[in-house]
Amino acid sequence: MPDVCSPRLLIETLAVGDELLRGETLDSNASYLQAALLRAGLRVARGAIVPDDEDTLASELSRAADRANVVVVSGGLGPTVDDRTAAAAARAFGRTLVCDEASLERMRGLFASRGYPFTPNNEKPAWVPNGARVIENPVGSAPAFVLDTGRAQLYFLPGVPREYRVLADRVVVPEIAALREGVVARALVLHTIGTTESRVDQLLRGVDFGDVRLSTRVDGPETNVILVAEGSTAGAAEDALARAATHAREALGPLVYGEGDATLASTLGEALAARGVTIAVAESCTGGLVSAAITDVPGASRYFSCGVVAYANDAKTAMCDVPPELIKNHGAVSEAVVRALARGIRARCGTDVGVGVTGIAGPTGATDDKPVGLVHFAAIAGVREVHRRVVFPPGRERVRKFAARVALAVALESLRSGDEPSERPHERAGDLARAARMGPPEPSGETP
Amino acid sequence: MPDVCSPRLLIETLAVGDELLRGETLDSNASYLQAALLRAGLRVARGAIVPDDEDTLASELSRAADRANVVVVSGGLGPTVDDRTAAAAARAFGRTLVCDEASLERMRGLFASRGYPFTPNNEKPAWVPNGARVIENPVGSAPAFVLDTGRAQLYFLPGVPREYRVLADRVVVPEIAALREGVVARALVLHTIGTTESRVDQLLRGVDFGDVRLSTRVDGPETNVILVAEGSTAGAAEDALARAATHAREALGPLVYGEGDATLASTLGEALAARGVTIAVAESCTGGLVSAAITDVPGASRYFSCGVVAYANDAKTAMCDVPPELIKNHGAVSEAVVRALARGIRARCGTDVGVGVTGIAGPTGATDDKPVGLVHFAAIAGVREVHRRVVFPPGRERVRKFAARVALAVALESLRSGDEPSERPHERAGDLARAARMGPPEPSGETP
Repeated sequence: MPDVCSPRLLIETLAVGDELLRGETLDSNASYLQAALLRAGLRVARGAIVPDDEDTLASELSRAADRANVVVVSGGLGPTVDDRTAAAAARAFGRTLVCDEASLERMRGLFASRGYPFTPNNEKPAWVPNGARVIENPVGSAPAFVLDTGRAQLYFLPGVPREYRVLADRVVVPEIAALREGVVARALVLHTIGTTESRVDQLLRGVDFGDVRLSTRVDGPETNVILVAEGSTAGAAEDALARAATHAREALGPLVYGEGDATLASTLGEALAARGVTIAVAESCTGGLVSAAITDVPGASRYFSCGVVAYANDAKTAMCDVPPELIKNHGAVSEAVVRALARGIRARCGTDVGVGVTGIAGPTGATDDKPVGLVHFAAIAGVREVHRRVVFPPGRERVRKFAARVALAVALESLRSGDEPSERPHERAGDLARAARMGPPEPSGETP
Repeated sequence: MPDVCSPRLLIETLAVGDELLRGETLDSNASYLQAALLRAGLRVARGAIVPDDEDTLASELSRAADRANVVVVSGGLGPTVDDRTAAAAARAFGRTLVCDEASLERMRGLFASRGYPFTPNNEKPAWVPNGARVIENPVGSAPAFVLDTGRAQLYFLPGVPREYRVLADRVVVPEIAALREGVVARALVLHTIGTTESRVDQLLRGVDFGDVRLSTRVDGPETNVILVAEGSTAGAAEDALARAATHAREALGPLVYGEGDATLASTLGEALAARGVTIAVAESCTGGLVSAAITDVPGASRYFSCGVVAYANDAKTAMCDVPPELIKNHGAVSEAVVRALARGIRARCGTDVGVGVTGIAGPTGATDDKPVGLVHFAAIAGVREVHRRVVFPPGRERVRKFAARVALAVALESLRSGDEPSERPHERAGDLARAARMGPPEPSGETP
């Protein structure tokens, strides 16, 4: 991915907590902030994880403040003896700890309203370094705070992800973005499925995006396109972004399935709900992951009727009415059987749309002409049937996960192809297979 | 969790890669190593993530080598221009880069066997700092290497998780463990489900574990017990560990479902396979996650026949033969319906074991007497039926994930209760409900 970000501000993250060093918890806060900053056109230069140790933390804080313009610290703001971040910050920057009366009152009220006793140690989160700007925590008790050392701004946020994320979105990211004087950044992610990253890149290459920076990112069988626009005002940045997004959508056509927070499952759900139709799924190698993805969306009961995980051949016949001779003649992993699964589950459940998936997740089950990773997909909506055959790279977990996403894309295609003429279906099928073969992004090019 | 680890060795991790600073990829390698070291009685003192920048990396490396005894570096060993770790290491420790001929030959052979052209840039991973000990990479092309600065040992591993993990397990963890002269550590994890962490703690409190250190860790609805034994020889450590494990199993009784790498799904799979029986699942609020968990285990087709995600009430009747009047009289989320689901799916699929799950994942669907988070479970094996009712804390994703695991535990219980007399089933049901209400571990006590 080309560098899309301005290097003007040096931003670091510091996560505090023994549990982040014992293999128990991944530091998802830093990753969340990185992604949010990237959407604002900003990049994190460095991240560190340190234990709940006041000495270590104080020296990390002063070093980070020497290096960076902004340091975002998470964790260690709670009431227990393990929570030492405020004390370490006070020591690192030569401050005393003072009690923020407003926070104390707020915490007392919060505890009273929940019927918890307010013991003396609960006062601790209200004690912040002298001169700190306190930020009220709308979803928890411990307040966040900001220290300005003259050279660096240090944000101290709670480590609880729910609290961290709300404060990052509402306070930290907007404030950091505002530090770049006179520049407002806006970003948008377009989600594509059905081709490779290099094909997306190629399709976008001839387009004039002006000053809007563009990058791509592989996410399983999908490729995301990230657009970052900057302007002197929010309006200017938003206008530039909207123009760029329109051009990108024109160039990519039906490869784009959604933008922003959309997922394949939420997009499929919206498409079903908008048409007032229902869906049923018959899956084999994906083992329940297609149904699980569809029902992961709140309110899925409006359109999802039933899923069958027809693992055994008998179950394909008993539960989805696949004729046994079809399995005998073509094998369970075949176009004939996947079409029968989609038709059978639709008829059984009386839904408008039926989806079928059958394949070989591995490690065993391959034959001479059917490799591990071979998966057939079918979706039937109205009179329209879509069939796809993809060979995924081996790896049971990856085959199952990728296939579940491709199944959603095929279901979406069957719905949308009813709305508009299908565009080069053969080329798209080939692209899909190529995209699938690409596999997920690997952190580096260390394998040939 | 009390500190279980000896602080004698100071170990740090350093992950290299721009993608780890853009919110795209979480550094799962460091977390993997942390957990593996913890099992060997060792702890990581600090972790950092740095970009693919030679200057930054060189200064990070020399600072880490000044502070720590062991530094484990991941990423940046590949053939592209972004891969700068070896060059940075050479600069940091005043070495030149030299070509390791054995690695070069191995890579040429690997490329030839896969039919890839060996272009000049592919030589790059064979160039390592002078004096480095090269470690062959059994699952990739780029070799790993170790630098000894006199004060610190620095391990340089590929960032690709599959390669990192193999090298961590086979080389890094055993070598680090051996650095503690005269002390051999062995560790074991016991997995429990069916009660709270505090109850597990209470049950273990009266037991004499000698010098074996013990800690607990909450993992969703499960509580893990970690035992770490040290001795002057491997045999002594293993003997002490085995004695402690026996005592812990005696104290915890049927709460322990497995140890080591066992999961609920693998344990259930083994129990089914050992008895030569088959299983079918009818689930509602879990939306396919129970079937997905069972089929996540390679070879699940030996015992898993079919799953139905009976989301709509009509589907419960049409696919699992739940009498409509049962749903009308008791509601879809009820003991009567969950028992009917388990019996119905077993009869339909002709399996030995049937499992039913129905509940309210939220955010909507609650009634006056049925809150969000209420889930009923049933499992039927032979003539034995188990029913459980649990109210999970709200949160759609958590309810679905926790309920899927509890369903596996209930299925396992139905099988095992055929083998031995059931132990205080009422108490265990209460414990299970309490454990479920506990929710997942939060990183710190920052909310009341």
